[in-house]
Amino acid sequence: MSERNPKDTIAVATHIVLPNDTNFHNNLFGGRLMSWIDIIASISARRHCNREVVTATINHLSFDKPIKLGDTVTLEAKVSRAFKSSMEIFVDVSVEDFLTGEKIKANEAITTFVAVDQHGRTIEVPKVVPETDEEIKRYGGALRRRQLSLILAKKMNPNEATELKALFFGEENID
Amino acid sequence: MSERNPKDTIAVATHIVLPNDTNFHNNLFGGRLMSWIDIIASISARRHCNREVVTATINHLSFDKPIKLGDTVTLEAKVSRAFKSSMEIFVDVSVEDFLTGEKIKANEAITTFVAVDQHGRTIEVPKVVPETDEEIKRYGGALRRRQLSLILAKKMNPNEATELKALFFGEENID
Amino acid sequence: MSERNPKDTIAVATHIVLPNDTNFHNNLFGGRLMSWIDIIASISARRHCNREVVTATINHLSFDKPIKLGDTVTLEAKVSRAFKSSMEIFVDVSVEDFLTGEKIKANEAITTFVAVDQHGRTIEVPKVVPETDEEIKRYGGALRRRQLSLILAKKMNPNEATELKALFFGEENID
Amino acid sequence: MSERNPKDTIAVATHIVLPNDTNFHNNLFGGRLMSWIDIIASISARRHCNREVVTATINHLSFDKPIKLGDTVTLEAKVSRAFKSSMEIFVDVSVEDFLTGEKIKANEAITTFVAVDQHGRTIEVPKVVPETDEEIKRYGGALRRRQLSLILAKKMNPNEATELKALFFGEENID
Amino acid sequence: MSERNPKDTIAVATHIVLPNDTNFHNNLFGGRLMSWIDIIASISARRHCNREVVTATINHLSFDKPIKLGDTVTLEAKVSRAFKSSMEIFVDVSVEDFLTGEKIKANEAITTFVAVDQHGRTIEVPKVVPETDEEIKRYGGALRRRQLSLILAKKMNPNEATELKALFFGEENID
Amino acid sequence: MSERNPKDTIAVATHIVLPNDTNFHNNLFGGRLMSWIDIIASISARRHCNREVVTATINHLSFDKPIKLGDTVTLEAKVSRAFKSSMEIFVDVSVEDFLTGEKIKANEAITTFVAVDQHGRTIEVPKVVPETDEEIKRYGGALRRRQLSLILAKKMNPNEATELKALFFGEENID
Repeated sequence: MSERNPKDTIAVATHIVLPNDTNFHNNLFGGRLMSWIDIIASISARRHCNREVVTATINHLSFDKPIKLGDTVTLEAKVSRAFKSSMEIFVDVSVEDFLTGEKIKANEAITTFVAVDQHGRTIEVPKVVPETDEEIKRYGGALRRRQLSLILAKKMNPNEATELKALFFGEENID
Repeated sequence: MSERNPKDTIAVATHIVLPNDTNFHNNLFGGRLMSWIDIIASISARRHCNREVVTATINHLSFDKPIKLGDTVTLEAKVSRAFKSSMEIFVDVSVEDFLTGEKIKANEAITTFVAVDQHGRTIEVPKVVPETDEEIKRYGGALRRRQLSLILAKKMNPNEATELKALFFGEENID
Repeated sequence: MSERNPKDTIAVATHIVLPNDTNFHNNLFGGRLMSWIDIIASISARRHCNREVVTATINHLSFDKPIKLGDTVTLEAKVSRAFKSSMEIFVDVSVEDFLTGEKIKANEAITTFVAVDQHGRTIEVPKVVPETDEEIKRYGGALRRRQLSLILAKKMNPNEATELKALFFGEENID
Repeated sequence: MSERNPKDTIAVATHIVLPNDTNFHNNLFGGRLMSWIDIIASISARRHCNREVVTATINHLSFDKPIKLGDTVTLEAKVSRAFKSSMEIFVDVSVEDFLTGEKIKANEAITTFVAVDQHGRTIEVPKVVPETDEEIKRYGGALRRRQLSLILAKKMNPNEATELKALFFGEENID
Repeated sequence: MSERNPKDTIAVATHIVLPNDTNFHNNLFGGRLMSWIDIIASISARRHCNREVVTATINHLSFDKPIKLGDTVTLEAKVSRAFKSSMEIFVDVSVEDFLTGEKIKANEAITTFVAVDQHGRTIEVPKVVPETDEEIKRYGGALRRRQLSLILAKKMNPNEATELKALFFGEENID
Repeated sequence: MSERNPKDTIAVATHIVLPNDTNFHNNLFGGRLMSWIDIIASISARRHCNREVVTATINHLSFDKPIKLGDTVTLEAKVSRAFKSSMEIFVDVSVEDFLTGEKIKANEAITTFVAVDQHGRTIEVPKVVPETDEEIKRYGGALRRRQLSLILAKKMNPNEATELKALFFGEENID
């Protein structure tokens, strides 16, 4: 099974926030953004493994600043690390001021997808070989985030999370 | 500012999975479930604080088993703990076999909402007074999950997360 | 075939009115409310008979007060009476003022669903045993409403509607 | 205030049933049909009174035969009678077999709309002058259906419904 | 294979522009109008050939004046000419001022559909026999527009477009 | 007013075809693709002129091969030429086989947008300076396509279309 660079898994989608996409504050409705994130992340995961994929976990998603009606919103998804049959994918969300062309990062989502065969059984995926500084940092943090996720889903005891425990005594950060 | 019991914040929505809600495996599309979660959690948060609320974070959401076309899906949201202006809300998702009436838990989401005034500024919310065993356990874990979330959002250094650190040496679980 | 109490068939869904759900007066669009009513009533009917169901009739639906953008809307469906293969379901719609928590009844819909097997043929459903005063009153009126519905659908001659005729001379009300 | 013939209020919409419009039996979802009915009826009502209108009542709607994915569906709405500020509108739904061109009537809905000014207050509408046999019959039955509707909404006592009572002793039919 | 008059292929749909259909200028969103055009044109094409049809080309569509939130919009589709297995369809879009009843033409779309059998293979369609002046004019221009379309799709060399070339030296107009 | 290169106006969106997006052949519904095209083209146009834009014309759109349920679809929009206040935008649509990663071009759309100020009045846009061979070819053909469009919209007499006439005697192609 071949290896793959994160840059080969990049998936991009740019949207305009229409009234159909808003909450009653005239901002992008959270549920709509989550839909967009789910789709673009699954495209990135399919590009990584060339198989069907299903959403496994939303590890983290923060809404840092409201996105307004009429804004141009770009989502960029990229696989940060692969485990046996699962892939961690970062989705960076940015908003573009069309009057100045300036792009501001608005949200960041961390999601996990699993590759499945036609019967829905999990199958192995290629390994990730990170290249840029950010890719290497995100690759390094993925194991800790995976342990966190297993603990949150009650599938791992905190005492077994050796990678994560180190975080609280060492120099490293979560991603 | 008054206190409130979790049971006063319960919000429920039952849906049927229509073709409009599916992915191409004929299962409930992840993005649609996230929309439903976002709406029902915000209703629970509004019931807690009687103010407008905005989505702040999806702390965790796992897709444990696929939900099928035609399934009856129930979401139940309940505030687990409130901090200054933010509220942690659990959304339990269950699927009902309409032939037997049996209900099976399918997903669990942990989200955070923030109360805002009419200008979008954060405002204080009532405290939560948990009553049942599960409510007390979720209340207890909320502080650790909050520290985790701040670390994931790079707004806290792991060394400062005293509550969370204790988790790796003590008896307690994440929730 | 077993009997069933109305309370076992209760189905609830709470929604927020988003711009996507409004007409151009910034009120909840009638067609959207009808969709919500149809879904929640069919869930109640499925809970009654543990079979697939199809919409047969909207017997009555009145829009008493406009529901506004941003309002919290709760639909509660409950089977009021079953005939051979059909079930009459009441859907009570209430609107909640999130600033005060006060709930006001906004609409009431009376619908009829039919249980079908996998070939779409009608099949028998359990009988209803009403318990509360309101359940007993609605149970009593169901036969008259059924006769009305058959007359409106030109499947019954007014002269044969003995139950209904009595209404115009007796003490009873339509529901 | 001028009078108007039903033919001047005809509004037509032809749709194709897409997957987006179906329930999980691959038939047209009841809630979608109701949305289509609500829109086309409101267009007919606007053509009658040249004012804004709001949905007041669904008096009757029966689903006589399932409408399938891919079917061509035509809705034709026409005002049958006007009262002070309200208009009764019939919506006839037919399905067209595109292989033969044959059209079959599938459903019939009876709805009531109310004309409102810019402040949402009810205002008077023109009278209806029926011309064809069917228009005259529907015009005649409208008063009885209105009494029925008021009784169902508990706004009229059955004893006062003189027009309706006559139905059970006379020769006339409900529409 | 029989012939058919354009009037036998007329398909009509009237819509109200809801918030769900708008862009952030509170006007009808272009993409939504295109959806409506695509559906009503395919109904007209199906009425012409009594077969399944698929969209082949949007030959021309101009947005002459903005259509506003709340406007009543009517689309009328009619087959103008048929070639071997393809049909050219005009869709005239008009907007109605509900206060005056006045209808103004807002857009015109020219589209081409192809008839297919159950395996997706193209099949022959009936010929068109135009009757009114406008139908005759549109029938005449269809061949030139077809050549244009083939040139735009790089399936024809401009030198072979004899009908079209004549246009630049003769008296005739494009439609 | 500054000039701009086509590469600065590129806008990309990748989608997965969900059941919600299909026609009843399980292929991407034409109207949905048109919505996607309209949005991505308007983003490209906004990037060119840093102003609000409105759809003016769909000059040409051909559906060459059906796009299937579950396919990964990428739209890439790029401004090809600007006139006084209008911009011609090409949207290239490709489909990706996720098993092999192979991308195949499926459609090509040519659209025109107009820049407007806050009162909806047209305003001037920057000129386009094409760089690649394809950009230069598309730039060259834009004037002929504009004349065609004006002729189709009956705003130009074929005799005045000097650029277009030359096409039928010279070496050049339409784009």
